Amino acid sequence: MAAPTRDVLYYDESQRTPLTPYLPSQILSSSSSKPHVTLTFATSLDSSIALAPGTQTHLSGPSSKAMTHFLRSCHSAILIGVGTALADNPSLNCRLSGVGGYGGSGLDNQPRPIILDPSARWGDLEGRKVIQLAREGKGKAPIIFFRRDVWEERMGDEEFRERMKVLEECGGGYYLVAPAKGEKFAWVDILGGLKEVGIRSVMIEGGGAVINELLGPENFPLVDSVIITIAPTWLGRGGVLVSPEERRTNGVQVPVGRLTDVKWVPLGEDVVCCGRPNLNG
Amino acid sequence: MAAPTRDVLYYDESQRTPLTPYLPSQILSSSSSKPHVTLTFATSLDSSIALAPGTQTHLSGPSSKAMTHFLRSCHSAILIGVGTALADNPSLNCRLSGVGGYGGSGLDNQPRPIILDPSARWGDLEGRKVIQLAREGKGKAPIIFFRRDVWEERMGDEEFRERMKVLEECGGGYYLVAPAKGEKFAWVDILGGLKEVGIRSVMIEGGGAVINELLGPENFPLVDSVIITIAPTWLGRGGVLVSPEERRTNGVQVPVGRLTDVKWVPLGEDVVCCGRPNLNG
Repeated sequence: MAAPTRDVLYYDESQRTPLTPYLPSQILSSSSSKPHVTLTFATSLDSSIALAPGTQTHLSGPSSKAMTHFLRSCHSAILIGVGTALADNPSLNCRLSGVGGYGGSGLDNQPRPIILDPSARWGDLEGRKVIQLAREGKGKAPIIFFRRDVWEERMGDEEFRERMKVLEECGGGYYLVAPAKGEKFAWVDILGGLKEVGIRSVMIEGGGAVINELLGPENFPLVDSVIITIAPTWLGRGGVLVSPEERRTNGVQVPVGRLTDVKWVPLGEDVVCCGRPNLNG
Repeated sequence: MAAPTRDVLYYDESQRTPLTPYLPSQILSSSSSKPHVTLTFATSLDSSIALAPGTQTHLSGPSSKAMTHFLRSCHSAILIGVGTALADNPSLNCRLSGVGGYGGSGLDNQPRPIILDPSARWGDLEGRKVIQLAREGKGKAPIIFFRRDVWEERMGDEEFRERMKVLEECGGGYYLVAPAKGEKFAWVDILGGLKEVGIRSVMIEGGGAVINELLGPENFPLVDSVIITIAPTWLGRGGVLVSPEERRTNGVQVPVGRLTDVKWVPLGEDVVCCGRPNLNG
């Protein structure tokens, strides 16, 4: 057992209890066509996740950080879009006490980082925290989801082949998805791909484009749980807004989505909103 | 004592307790240059108060309605902008059990409705619920805040003079404010005017333009308490967004406002966020 490092996080049992009904069940049927999907993010009161596109804004308090790492320990993967991977250079590991690399053995309960990178923009791997942590045995190496055609084209390119080598040497890999509309993937294909690479549960953390797509009527039924941290601040106009595309019924604008089985859990100055998509709403 | 009517509302003592630290004190010094200001509104998770401008959207649950009426009973006035007065035709009275007109005597604890109507757009008074309720003894008549120049100009107009007569006959009145910038009033003038007409505490309920102005750095120090109800729904893009104008320090975008002394109170499927402006944040 490795000695805990100084950046190890603790999350009290009493704080875990209210969240458990929203977490992946250990007895998830292997016949399910997709992993359990938990959508989770932190916003301001005016529903922004960042002050401006391509920037990282620290919104929520220290307890919220520990909660995020607890949630990560409960999922077999964490997924983000390439925009967030480029803007934040995130660690995408779990620093909860007792997890592999943080007091636990091997990589026990470390989630697999998944980066959606249709156009292969996530380069400069040597400078990426997630790669460094995988080499240090403090997190799993990422799996990158590429567009099949982009990957085939880029494999002729030496820089890209080198990137794939770095990825594979630290234990990572890639998965190829056919593009759906334009540059985008269809979420049903992404989740099918996750299932195929052995992911039973995925925590989807952002960024804005990813979240807004999943809150839309087409994709919301694919989500099992939503866990949102709200900080008591207003970032103002021009931020990265969490708000799905508007929805109309017979030409009249109607609410896009609603949660059910809702629980609000105060956490320091923030609140955590837990719920499940209300598909009859 | 009048018999309670069937639309009377009840709000449990146990639910009132968490809100009291944010409500106007009964011993407010008479030397204060402005009334106690409570800013209160209900939003979706994506910080919209309505699906589209000029429409009313019922966001929050039944407990939230009773809470609003309890809050109204604790203030000597309720204030809204003319856009909301036109779109919603609101009652602007208090239907809490025990209040004047709802089991109580006279107009005890009925707040005074205040409508900010710089350009004198709020006509057709016979069709207004707030006028009807004042005539029935179930609410106070409104005081309208006009731009002084608009009022002087319109007093030559018979329809407008008739409007003023209807207003005064049911016990209402008007107050004249000099315009600050363009058509707008300065909030310091509005609050000074309220003080002058004997208002010791005001609950500001909306709409979007009013709320966003008060959340901006210039006006936020005038606010004493903020009470927001958040419903677990997303209205989608194109709604009436609560989000103040962006703020920059040395060219860099920074958060606009923050609350302190924050309390989150679950209320049915909704949550109530109570706080005070953090002016050091």
